[in-house]
Amino acid sequence: MSVITLLTDFGTQDGYAGVMRGVIWKINPQIQIADLTHEISPQNIREGALTLARCAPFFPENTVHIAVVDPGVGSQRRPIAAQLGSHYFVGPDNGLFTLLLENAEVSHSPFTIVHLDQPGFWLTPISYSFHGRDIFAPVGAHLASGVPLLSLGSPINDPIRISFPKPRQITNGWQGEIIAIDHFGNLSTNLERSLLSPHQQIQVYIKKKMIHNMVKSYSECRPGDLVAIFDSDHRLSIAVVNGNASLVLQAQVGDQIELQVF
Amino acid sequence: MSVITLLTDFGTQDGYAGVMRGVIWKINPQIQIADLTHEISPQNIREGALTLARCAPFFPENTVHIAVVDPGVGSQRRPIAAQLGSHYFVGPDNGLFTLLLENAEVSHSPFTIVHLDQPGFWLTPISYSFHGRDIFAPVGAHLASGVPLLSLGSPINDPIRISFPKPRQITNGWQGEIIAIDHFGNLSTNLERSLLSPHQQIQVYIKKKMIHNMVKSYSECRPGDLVAIFDSDHRLSIAVVNGNASLVLQAQVGDQIELQVF
Amino acid sequence: MSVITLLTDFGTQDGYAGVMRGVIWKINPQIQIADLTHEISPQNIREGALTLARCAPFFPENTVHIAVVDPGVGSQRRPIAAQLGSHYFVGPDNGLFTLLLENAEVSHSPFTIVHLDQPGFWLTPISYSFHGRDIFAPVGAHLASGVPLLSLGSPINDPIRISFPKPRQITNGWQGEIIAIDHFGNLSTNLERSLLSPHQQIQVYIKKKMIHNMVKSYSECRPGDLVAIFDSDHRLSIAVVNGNASLVLQAQVGDQIELQVF
Repeated sequence: MSVITLLTDFGTQDGYAGVMRGVIWKINPQIQIADLTHEISPQNIREGALTLARCAPFFPENTVHIAVVDPGVGSQRRPIAAQLGSHYFVGPDNGLFTLLLENAEVSHSPFTIVHLDQPGFWLTPISYSFHGRDIFAPVGAHLASGVPLLSLGSPINDPIRISFPKPRQITNGWQGEIIAIDHFGNLSTNLERSLLSPHQQIQVYIKKKMIHNMVKSYSECRPGDLVAIFDSDHRLSIAVVNGNASLVLQAQVGDQIELQVF
Repeated sequence: MSVITLLTDFGTQDGYAGVMRGVIWKINPQIQIADLTHEISPQNIREGALTLARCAPFFPENTVHIAVVDPGVGSQRRPIAAQLGSHYFVGPDNGLFTLLLENAEVSHSPFTIVHLDQPGFWLTPISYSFHGRDIFAPVGAHLASGVPLLSLGSPINDPIRISFPKPRQITNGWQGEIIAIDHFGNLSTNLERSLLSPHQQIQVYIKKKMIHNMVKSYSECRPGDLVAIFDSDHRLSIAVVNGNASLVLQAQVGDQIELQVF
Repeated sequence: MSVITLLTDFGTQDGYAGVMRGVIWKINPQIQIADLTHEISPQNIREGALTLARCAPFFPENTVHIAVVDPGVGSQRRPIAAQLGSHYFVGPDNGLFTLLLENAEVSHSPFTIVHLDQPGFWLTPISYSFHGRDIFAPVGAHLASGVPLLSLGSPINDPIRISFPKPRQITNGWQGEIIAIDHFGNLSTNLERSLLSPHQQIQVYIKKKMIHNMVKSYSECRPGDLVAIFDSDHRLSIAVVNGNASLVLQAQVGDQIELQVF
């Protein structure tokens, strides 16, 4: 049984994501569909790319991930599909898949990217503003049903990539920034555990404030305590135990964070 | 594999829609279920009817659409089910299916509507306030599993219809109104492309303000520009490119819009 | 076809619940998955327990309910799974299943509870902060795929239980409180219909205010009227017909309510 995931900035009030399910099931009603999220901030490609890269690896091999954060819909931006390692990805060519492509390159996984240029696999006529429904959903359904990637488009090797803020090495440590704030108000950063050697001690500063508690688990501190923790994605994260660090610290995506190593 | 869709005003915090899935899968665990939306404004039948009419056609033939926006639950209002063309609909008899019924009539599709009067297909006992769970979910599951429509109720030909604002012809054009505002703040109107001949030029006014950009695609303008566009449902829509027209124009459902033809 | 439900406080913006689907379908892509809700208030075990107890019984026999409201994640709190009657439950040992366990005891249904101590059925390595993904989703998928409960852990008989406010008998009636407020603003209480004899008349007071309308169905009153009603879960509920009682009465969970019997 094939699996498709959906990640969009469509919200859930208008039925746009539901319509994509309809299009998929019209082609193949056996497909299992998971909503990753439809609450990416409108037009925020970077946020979509981070969320997709975090979630996709937990799905079965051959899952087709359809991602639609698409401010350029209707323009000359290409619709694309890709096989990166053992997963497939379908969406606009605007950088949404940058991190996954980089991961495939770093791990020397095979990858193929195609420009979707075979309208025979799309709805007709296609609209100028809803390619999620008209191109990406039907292409994803065909991919998940066994149509070969190379039947759906022509190979390209110049997909758009976007840049993500990189950690910067400073005296005695690293400077990074907040890249995402989750539902609990936890502040996720671009400082990954792999920056450190296994037994290094660290001290974390955010907005000139030192985080006194560096913990492995929230349960080491009491409710209300401010803690730094490597989260379930191995990223340094700032949290308030059973509270909301984003509110407590008035923190936003882009705020700087410093990590002193000793 | 059969498909059911759910559209309600139940929200997603209380598990009400989840319970409907339970009831459906208790009858037939093979059914695929899509949430269209559970965020119709409470008791807003017109909004539910518009969203359902927009989404339903994209689903496979024989899909069963369960729609529950039901301010009259527990009263004498009839529970109904209908076959309209190649789709099935289940819900309260309060006008939710008006547009789909009109579409069936206009396209001379066959249709049958029944008053659900066979409690043998319902949960027992039924509550006075949650017919989505007690009547519509089980009836939808039975329909999707092959029980004939006419086994579930008695034919009627007087379903409740509600009226929708119609465009009004004015000197040199049409006057319409905003009928929906989506997650992006785009303003959807009751002015459909079919009102115009293929090569007519138009000028759009909202709240005395002329929309300078009449575009085919958002990408013809720059972020922040106010544009008029025929959207993916062929309705005239006012949008701010990568922005929120509803906020920028302080616009609401019901606001008038004028279209000058020349 | 097996069914799993998910109930969490994860929200829907970050893809956390989507990731759980991925983990489940990696083990068994045939499983049907229903989201009960992901909008339990953060860390609110009592709210999660009430919602789960209300929704679970409507699912088919052998459904596996995964519930993750888990302020103690990463601490010594045990991960558990239980068979209570004909349903399975998986989650942290913090009281989430108290009501369902009490129901099983009251109805003399058989039940078995195990401490999940077999890491062979988990993801590796497990994180300190996302056991929904690393322990509960894979264990639930194995249970739904036929792995016996007793293979997944060791029997225990001391699960954590939490207390819920009980109705208090007063002169001529009962004093209770608001235990939940739903999407419509309806106020659900801990006063169940079973407290009354079939033909007793009642009078309801909230915040010193008498509710004049005791109705069977909302439709007995006019929009805007304040009514008391036994809701679809047989609980006394205060509602405003087609309105929002929570806003009108400025009511909160924990507010007292009185029921005079005569």
